[in-house]
Amino acid sequence: MTPVMTEVELAAFMAREYGTVADRFVIEKVVPGALDLRLKVDPEQDIRPGGTVSGPVMFTLADVAAYLVTLAHVGPEALAVTVNATIDFMRKPAPVDLVAQARLLKLGRALSVSDMLLYSVGHEKPVARASLTYSLPPRRLTGEGAAPV
Amino acid sequence: MTPVMTEVELAAFMAREYGTVADRFVIEKVVPGALDLRLKVDPEQDIRPGGTVSGPVMFTLADVAAYLVTLAHVGPEALAVTVNATIDFMRKPAPVDLVAQARLLKLGRALSVSDMLLYSVGHEKPVARASLTYSLPPRRLTGEGAAPV
Amino acid sequence: MTPVMTEVELAAFMAREYGTVADRFVIEKVVPGALDLRLKVDPEQDIRPGGTVSGPVMFTLADVAAYLVTLAHVGPEALAVTVNATIDFMRKPAPVDLVAQARLLKLGRALSVSDMLLYSVGHEKPVARASLTYSLPPRRLTGEGAAPV
Amino acid sequence: MTPVMTEVELAAFMAREYGTVADRFVIEKVVPGALDLRLKVDPEQDIRPGGTVSGPVMFTLADVAAYLVTLAHVGPEALAVTVNATIDFMRKPAPVDLVAQARLLKLGRALSVSDMLLYSVGHEKPVARASLTYSLPPRRLTGEGAAPV
Repeated sequence: MTPVMTEVELAAFMAREYGTVADRFVIEKVVPGALDLRLKVDPEQDIRPGGTVSGPVMFTLADVAAYLVTLAHVGPEALAVTVNATIDFMRKPAPVDLVAQARLLKLGRALSVSDMLLYSVGHEKPVARASLTYSLPPRRLTGEGAAPV
Repeated sequence: MTPVMTEVELAAFMAREYGTVADRFVIEKVVPGALDLRLKVDPEQDIRPGGTVSGPVMFTLADVAAYLVTLAHVGPEALAVTVNATIDFMRKPAPVDLVAQARLLKLGRALSVSDMLLYSVGHEKPVARASLTYSLPPRRLTGEGAAPV
Repeated sequence: MTPVMTEVELAAFMAREYGTVADRFVIEKVVPGALDLRLKVDPEQDIRPGGTVSGPVMFTLADVAAYLVTLAHVGPEALAVTVNATIDFMRKPAPVDLVAQARLLKLGRALSVSDMLLYSVGHEKPVARASLTYSLPPRRLTGEGAAPV
Repeated sequence: MTPVMTEVELAAFMAREYGTVADRFVIEKVVPGALDLRLKVDPEQDIRPGGTVSGPVMFTLADVAAYLVTLAHVGPEALAVTVNATIDFMRKPAPVDLVAQARLLKLGRALSVSDMLLYSVGHEKPVARASLTYSLPPRRLTGEGAAPV
């Protein structure tokens, strides 16, 4: 699996397609079959009582990471949508940025499968594990699935 | 399975614990083993290009519905956390409110399991299906899992 | 969703395609959007120490039920394969037959989604919950996915 | 995470607890936080029309691998049961032995989480991905969950 988009090209695509939402994410690294994505945790919005990050925020990071690791290998024209997501919440995140280390496990004609571990930056043990299936065009025309952000 | 909290008691609990986040949700119905929860879709925040609602917004609704259907049957003292969530995105949501029709399938000493269908209000076919496992106290002391909002 | 195969036609299809494996299953009921499938638990093979039925046996029932509820609505020519399965094991099964009550939640051009509850016959509470995504032809040509039995 | 059982000790435990079922498996390697398990595919029983291995056989391998990677780190006294399993079937397996490369991602007081890739021996790309949650004693007393074999 060879990437067809660089970190800079993916970031430009995100900014163009998703506007200010894109500002929450930093594409740290794209390599063959993998991508690291950081979510800049906003103390105002994302921190919960007890000093943690909520499940939906972790889900958002996982969904965007799966989307981007797929796009990085098929190009920006793809309107991929999520068809299935499974996430295991394993440890309480610290109130700091989160990083997803995503792998593209399969890139088929109709489906991509990726998985990842999520880490609180500076912590050794993963806070969550996620796996996602994306549907690739031309299925986008059928109205199946969900947009990642 | 007999509920121990009413719709009004759950709503008061949400407002107390989660502040303004609680305003996004309407607890429509609590019956033995089930709960209907509506997410008030915000045209400014939640609608995406193409006139749809994103996957993370649907995940948030599923997570809160699983949390509330569990609390409705164990009471407000419970600090339950999500340990596993699986969601199938089946159809593109309309740009309207979403309703989760959740069932509490198991209420054990340590784990609860619930599942649900998500609907765009006024539409017949479900847009998504979700199942979630919640860990019940005393596990909250171990720092496992994720807060729902 | 209207079935295009009866219980008898599905049973004949199973016997033709899967030989003696088909003898383990009884297709109890086919109705629009749903199917009940019974697995005849074999005391020699399927019962474990402690008088229970193992997880893989329950998975097999779930996989075949998802396959048959899909076929019942698309016809016997379909070589559908499983692409994703999630199962929650909720209670210890009794050493008796198991029944899956499956619903077909979505029948798209490329994917079907079904879910189900599994019961020990004669018991009120479900022992497991499962949801499965099947890929429909022409994807079979790509070698993705897994045969159900 | 430090293993407390060797490959030989795990194999002896399997043979004692599961009898001839244990003969289907080879525990290839135990290292801190990980285990490789091989399923000896039986041409008579496990190969399907089209020369492939079925989904339930792959599920069985995943379930036993998750069980053993947990036991390897907690010891043979544990009567762990599966509470949740998710599997993505990505490619058609070859009619040869399967190997699961499992990682123990979390070992908590009540739950363990592991994931793995499954390979057809001698093939480079994984045929499936699985993640499983095991419940650890004392929950076994509650009758939740499923035995792995």
